[in-house]
Amino acid sequence: MAGISGTKAEGANSVVVSGGYEDDEDAGDLIRYTGMGGNDPATKKQIADQTLDQPGNAGLVTSQLEGLPVRVTRGTNGDPMYSPSSGFRYDGLFRVADHWTKIGKGGFRIWQFLLERIEGDAGGYGEGAEPSGQRKPGRTTGVVTRVTRNTVVTEWGKRLYAHRCQFCGAQIEVVGGRYAEGAHIRALGSPHEGPDTPDNVLCLCPTCHVRFDNGGVYVTDELVIHDATAGEQLGVLQPHKKHSINVDHLRQHRGRWGY
Amino acid sequence: MAGISGTKAEGANSVVVSGGYEDDEDAGDLIRYTGMGGNDPATKKQIADQTLDQPGNAGLVTSQLEGLPVRVTRGTNGDPMYSPSSGFRYDGLFRVADHWTKIGKGGFRIWQFLLERIEGDAGGYGEGAEPSGQRKPGRTTGVVTRVTRNTVVTEWGKRLYAHRCQFCGAQIEVVGGRYAEGAHIRALGSPHEGPDTPDNVLCLCPTCHVRFDNGGVYVTDELVIHDATAGEQLGVLQPHKKHSINVDHLRQHRGRWGY
Repeated sequence: MAGISGTKAEGANSVVVSGGYEDDEDAGDLIRYTGMGGNDPATKKQIADQTLDQPGNAGLVTSQLEGLPVRVTRGTNGDPMYSPSSGFRYDGLFRVADHWTKIGKGGFRIWQFLLERIEGDAGGYGEGAEPSGQRKPGRTTGVVTRVTRNTVVTEWGKRLYAHRCQFCGAQIEVVGGRYAEGAHIRALGSPHEGPDTPDNVLCLCPTCHVRFDNGGVYVTDELVIHDATAGEQLGVLQPHKKHSINVDHLRQHRGRWGY
Repeated sequence: MAGISGTKAEGANSVVVSGGYEDDEDAGDLIRYTGMGGNDPATKKQIADQTLDQPGNAGLVTSQLEGLPVRVTRGTNGDPMYSPSSGFRYDGLFRVADHWTKIGKGGFRIWQFLLERIEGDAGGYGEGAEPSGQRKPGRTTGVVTRVTRNTVVTEWGKRLYAHRCQFCGAQIEVVGGRYAEGAHIRALGSPHEGPDTPDNVLCLCPTCHVRFDNGGVYVTDELVIHDATAGEQLGVLQPHKKHSINVDHLRQHRGRWGY
């Protein structure tokens, strides 16, 4: 019992956290989970690059994009703080909140996933936790959320650009006025720990925001906007004179998608 | 001390809940709040239509679109369960989660707002609650979320349409695959109580989803898609043969925007 169960088409149904990957980090309700592949089971070291073609990895991305919950099971070899003293234990439903790529401790490319416990899910860490079959999946299964953070800084950015998308130029109108989203280039919070500062913020329409946050679009040091999936340039970012963008944050964003 | 403080440009900073409007409903952490205008203070009855031109109403919409928090103060004439026994009491930060229009109990058009306590805000209902000035607004001010619910039903809809937006035809690609959102026509949960059934779901891109949920786009009984802010037709919805759309839900959606 190990690894990720799932496919690109259906998403990942379940993962096992059992200390098999040196780049994993378990914080209980939040897990930095390394994808599958390239791993030597004997030494737990990476010996080759991971890719998104591996079905478990592609499945976890699908789970994020589709908002599908993932069942987490912990094994005895994981972090002692959260792992069962023997065997395996079902630990509840998590959502895939983020994914990115980087060079792991072993010097090879890995893909990582941020797993976050779904609020209201009853899964606990006790040895006596109920098995999966006795839960009421109807309460939480398949109901997750896409979270967009608005801060005073993104607010400032949106007003500076009159709510016009810095990528596609769309200016979205609804009944009550204009709508845009403030997008952090280096994402806030774990694991990217981007700052909530003007030089880390773009004013984007909802669609470009989703694409940027999921690696479909990236920006070079020269501020050229690239459509990564179509392999073409979309234009050049033209920041307002009151808005300077920190290229280090653009690099961090490109880095987490391997560009 | 009464009503809504704010403007369309800046959003609404604060509202007072004090039983002044017969269509209000206070459930503690969730408030169905009637906008300003058209109200006879003596009888609390509506005597004229409300509009979004009134600055407090426009301000609350801006607060929702911009993700700005609203300070809620309760007065002694509100629901006895949540109101102070005398005077006024600051009750913490709320977000504007939704807005819509309808004909109120008095027979006139009103605009209503769903106010939802911001998670983690310390505001309480006790008489001894701290005044506004002693809170730490930095913890929560301006950090709110746009919530998109994905369910197994929206999942089904997205696969049926190969993630192609039913309004604009966009098929969003990111690193891990295609992305779309399942949009409920009649919204889930309070106050619209829409069902999570296939006949209440559309497959939309993030931008069209935001526009639909905020009244920028609506659909007629004949499935004609209207851009409400531009005043033009966008095309005709062409549902998949396995997907029937319930026109009652389209009517409820139009009704809540006054179309």
